[in-house]
Amino acid sequence: MLDSYRTLILPDVQLMLLEGDRDGLAAFCGVVHPVVIAEICEELEDDQVWQVLDNAELSVKIEIFEHISLRRQEMLVESLELPKLTELLEHMSSDDRVDLMSRMSPDRCESVMRLLASSERNEIRKLLSYDESSAGSIMTTEYASLPANITVREAIDKLRQQAPNSETIYYVFILDDHRRLEGLISLRELILARPDIHLADIMERDVVRMRVTDEREAVARTLARYNFLAVPIVDADDRLVGIVTHDDAIDVVEEEATEDAYLQGAVQPLDDSYEDTPLLTILWKRGIWLVFLSVMALTNAKVLDYYSHSYDRFTTLVLMFLPLVMGSGGNAGSQSATLFIRMIALQGTSRSGRSLLAENRSVIAREFMVALSLGTALAVLDFVVARVFFDRSQSESIAIAFTVVTVVVLGTSFGALLPLLLSRLGMDPAIMSNPLIASILDVLAVTTFFQIAVLLL
Amino acid sequence: MLDSYRTLILPDVQLMLLEGDRDGLAAFCGVVHPVVIAEICEELEDDQVWQVLDNAELSVKIEIFEHISLRRQEMLVESLELPKLTELLEHMSSDDRVDLMSRMSPDRCESVMRLLASSERNEIRKLLSYDESSAGSIMTTEYASLPANITVREAIDKLRQQAPNSETIYYVFILDDHRRLEGLISLRELILARPDIHLADIMERDVVRMRVTDEREAVARTLARYNFLAVPIVDADDRLVGIVTHDDAIDVVEEEATEDAYLQGAVQPLDDSYEDTPLLTILWKRGIWLVFLSVMALTNAKVLDYYSHSYDRFTTLVLMFLPLVMGSGGNAGSQSATLFIRMIALQGTSRSGRSLLAENRSVIAREFMVALSLGTALAVLDFVVARVFFDRSQSESIAIAFTVVTVVVLGTSFGALLPLLLSRLGMDPAIMSNPLIASILDVLAVTTFFQIAVLLL
Repeated sequence: MLDSYRTLILPDVQLMLLEGDRDGLAAFCGVVHPVVIAEICEELEDDQVWQVLDNAELSVKIEIFEHISLRRQEMLVESLELPKLTELLEHMSSDDRVDLMSRMSPDRCESVMRLLASSERNEIRKLLSYDESSAGSIMTTEYASLPANITVREAIDKLRQQAPNSETIYYVFILDDHRRLEGLISLRELILARPDIHLADIMERDVVRMRVTDEREAVARTLARYNFLAVPIVDADDRLVGIVTHDDAIDVVEEEATEDAYLQGAVQPLDDSYEDTPLLTILWKRGIWLVFLSVMALTNAKVLDYYSHSYDRFTTLVLMFLPLVMGSGGNAGSQSATLFIRMIALQGTSRSGRSLLAENRSVIAREFMVALSLGTALAVLDFVVARVFFDRSQSESIAIAFTVVTVVVLGTSFGALLPLLLSRLGMDPAIMSNPLIASILDVLAVTTFFQIAVLLL
Repeated sequence: MLDSYRTLILPDVQLMLLEGDRDGLAAFCGVVHPVVIAEICEELEDDQVWQVLDNAELSVKIEIFEHISLRRQEMLVESLELPKLTELLEHMSSDDRVDLMSRMSPDRCESVMRLLASSERNEIRKLLSYDESSAGSIMTTEYASLPANITVREAIDKLRQQAPNSETIYYVFILDDHRRLEGLISLRELILARPDIHLADIMERDVVRMRVTDEREAVARTLARYNFLAVPIVDADDRLVGIVTHDDAIDVVEEEATEDAYLQGAVQPLDDSYEDTPLLTILWKRGIWLVFLSVMALTNAKVLDYYSHSYDRFTTLVLMFLPLVMGSGGNAGSQSATLFIRMIALQGTSRSGRSLLAENRSVIAREFMVALSLGTALAVLDFVVARVFFDRSQSESIAIAFTVVTVVVLGTSFGALLPLLLSRLGMDPAIMSNPLIASILDVLAVTTFFQIAVLLL
């Protein structure tokens, strides 16, 4: 519905731009949802985007700009005069502003900083200092907060004043004199409470909070788990420094899923969407893995070289069924790796570390059962096919079947244990991509196949 | 923080259960967050869970129960007496209730239905009728709604009455006499508005809405795109029938990402978490893919069989470098498939269909550039290694290099185009898993290698 809507109004916008119809553009920005305008802007040239934005009211202009992709934002501000850039940044919400500034050149960043008020400057410096994967990097500092010793009536009045500068007023954080987090009241509870009661009497005191240094993924998962609208983020002294809201959490979940999907396919994660990533970056992020995997395959060539003395004896057998045995190990391994990587991701970082192996003992035991069952089933299938369709001798077919069971069990074990091991070492288990597991299994399959062939034939 | 918290209180709970300490359990349920209690319940036996739940206040009991995993809920209610089951279902929120009932046996479902009020019965039947992947299957019918012709003051009073039965009161939907969606007001706007103004004067009229038959993934993506707290769901006559809230959307994003990850690793999606899935289900969901991929590999054996007449001429060459050329094609193909599948998923279903190929022309052109560059780079690497480390003749090394360029280009093309094609056919592009792409490329690699070898040597 919405996409066709966008396609319908794009020509209108282009016509208004062509005719320099400022009133039309202003009306357009006043009526259409900023998200839709932002998407239309992605289809326009830089100067056209500015033409649209400059005809919108300031608050709408900021909202449209914030919904444009980060990569495009970066390009849009590249040639913007310093005063205009400063005005834009001044009005943006604190989290979006820092995202953009972290992509600007240090020089330009410093030039802008000098034009900003010192309080904003300090806040930006602080937010820029947090690690990219931490809660600090996605939180906003624009939250609603109140003291505990006021009444509900006073609270609602104060909230009205804070509303314009708060990302959400549906969660109100109760702070003591040192800005330490004492409690939480939702706007729903405020509306339902008696107007003369004190906040201290109705606030929830056991507030779930996250540290500014926690992984952003863990914050998103906590929010999802409790169905929160926002999670308060505190510093080492339990002082409230920001909040992470539901819309940021859903973005994090999406981004982390994309990163893991890329890694699973042996692509280094990209900062922007695939469409927006420059060619050279893509070549690098894909090439590095392809070269690494080729080196693995060349190792395999060395292994095959090592067995060349037995080529005369089972050339045809090995050559014909090599793709089968390599594939069986790689496929079983890819399955296990995929399932375990996702399981670790969904359990969250908090469960990782020393206890991971112990906690997963029953899953590992079951994985071994799966490997044996599936390996046996495939072996029987391959035995029958080799005998009937390929007319191989009984001992040759047995060699194939044995190899398949072995590599499926090996594949499953490697696929399950390598991600667990990586996560235990504090590394991202997702780098155990399907192609990587497959290429490890290729080497094992070749060795196994020749050893069993030598043994049985 | 939270997980260690859970580990800390689990022994206390087990002690209280052992001693039958009802007061202790009641106090525990009154203080600890229901989400944490639900997670503790996952570690307990069925009868222990009921012991905990039966000592909680009804509203808390329901909240705890709703946070227990669906698979466990199903097991918990299996042997519950009908009146207790009916009471539980009566108080659950409409979306969670339907999720559970859709997993109960039809007989049991009918028995419960007979004990429910007819209005609830009708609602449940309606919700049960929606397709599992549709907006209808994840929406809740408990939303706050008001007419347009009342004042802000009256609206806030009415909201207070609706609050207990609404999933959220932060978005208030304005309906006409036929329950058609006329507008939307947020509680924030209500709080900020003058008390005597009419809702009709301040409500947003151009409300983004989704249809009850829309894909649940599209609904989640719309919510994420607009940073909404909830999306209204309407029927064919534009009547409001439910809302999908932010917490459901984040669950959908997570589930869809898990499904895609599984498919990418050639595992049929599971209904429950991997840990909770029964062994037989796993064997089936993995086995079906492994057998299919084995059949692909056996086809490859047939292809190798076809070339057996030329074995004498290039046995060593082909045997040693076969894993390399097969791997190069599969890896490049896996990368492209991964990137295109994720791109299609993030673009959303609304863009799919006839325009997908046209819309992605520039990405496809770039993909071809990537294929040529990476293929050439790998070919040069492999040529040098074959000459220097494996001492192959110049023409043999050239044959390897040529094959690698060809299979990388083929792999990239298949990896990019097959997902686009599937999505155009209305199928899920994610079934183009890494192992599947790899096994298709294996066949192509073998054919290419032999053809080039015959041509050059």
